[in-house]
Amino acid sequence: MDDLTARHNEKMRKIKAARDKLMATKTEQKGLIIVHTGAGKGKSSSGFGMIMRCIGHGIPCAVVQFIKGTWITGEKELLRTRFAEECTFVVSGEGFTWETQDRDRDVAAAQAGWARAKELILDPEIRFVLLDEINIALRYDYLDIDEVVDFLLTRKPQMTHVVLTGRNAKPELIEAADLVTEMTLVKHPFKDGVVAQKGVEF
Amino acid sequence: MDDLTARHNEKMRKIKAARDKLMATKTEQKGLIIVHTGAGKGKSSSGFGMIMRCIGHGIPCAVVQFIKGTWITGEKELLRTRFAEECTFVVSGEGFTWETQDRDRDVAAAQAGWARAKELILDPEIRFVLLDEINIALRYDYLDIDEVVDFLLTRKPQMTHVVLTGRNAKPELIEAADLVTEMTLVKHPFKDGVVAQKGVEF
Repeated sequence: MDDLTARHNEKMRKIKAARDKLMATKTEQKGLIIVHTGAGKGKSSSGFGMIMRCIGHGIPCAVVQFIKGTWITGEKELLRTRFAEECTFVVSGEGFTWETQDRDRDVAAAQAGWARAKELILDPEIRFVLLDEINIALRYDYLDIDEVVDFLLTRKPQMTHVVLTGRNAKPELIEAADLVTEMTLVKHPFKDGVVAQKGVEF
Repeated sequence: MDDLTARHNEKMRKIKAARDKLMATKTEQKGLIIVHTGAGKGKSSSGFGMIMRCIGHGIPCAVVQFIKGTWITGEKELLRTRFAEECTFVVSGEGFTWETQDRDRDVAAAQAGWARAKELILDPEIRFVLLDEINIALRYDYLDIDEVVDFLLTRKPQMTHVVLTGRNAKPELIEAADLVTEMTLVKHPFKDGVVAQKGVEF
């Protein structure tokens, strides 16, 4: 076992120990750390569906969007115009898209989003927080995975649910999570020349 | 190759030919046949998210729910109380759940749902129809897969999107579909004794 593998295993062991300690305190209901990952569809739209579900239940909730453009207009407009009371909506990713070539700006935007995310998660009024596409910010190390996982495991209020979406979820996050779903692409119409469409893709 | 395999292959060939014919007529935008399947989370909530997205865009839409209880209260209440104008909501599955032991009643409920679904799909005002958990009704042959696939391929208006959700999507449906996502369960908290919770599971 080389040094890197040993460090990785030790890290995973620590995360598992922290998670087990957390799980040992669980009551019948608890706030979950939920991850939607994979290359398939439905990671963000399912998170958005859960947000609407919370609104239906009267559960105060929040969204921090880490990548500009994932939600182009449909859901953003609906939340901003009709549910501004029920759901706090923050876009941190205005400054970072696939086209940006300015890493410092990207890191600053991601960090600002994470700072807001922590406030929202700690807010005792809010019980459900969606961190949309945060996995992208984590993947490029715009955010420190250890800090994020440590915050979720040790600071997140017991009854608050946090959903983290995006491809390529880091193994540390999967280890820390309670509920992980991988969306797998089976078939996609883009290969047949069909463009992205309102209501389906955005 | 035995008889069953030969019949299956011939059937798939026919579906593919019908689908290719349909695809040959496609313009840049087209209504898609979309399937969410697999044992993981997010099949229904992502469909529901797409419905809310349509509402945000002002696209008239409809939901036919084939299994009672998949959407317990959150989203159903929201659609019925706040978006009754924008989204037609039909529950056909009142009569069939895992607990029902009356197959005739189940078949009748599924057939009634499918009859309404066809009307909604054909309605020129409606551009997006979610058939929630229809795969369960298809799996148990409460509905005839050939009739459903044939209707989608030959009768669905060109620009209307239809989303079909539920585990164990039949191969005929996957063959006919434009966009198929499999939700795979990576990790689930139920095994740790955590109960289903508002906002997350329903």
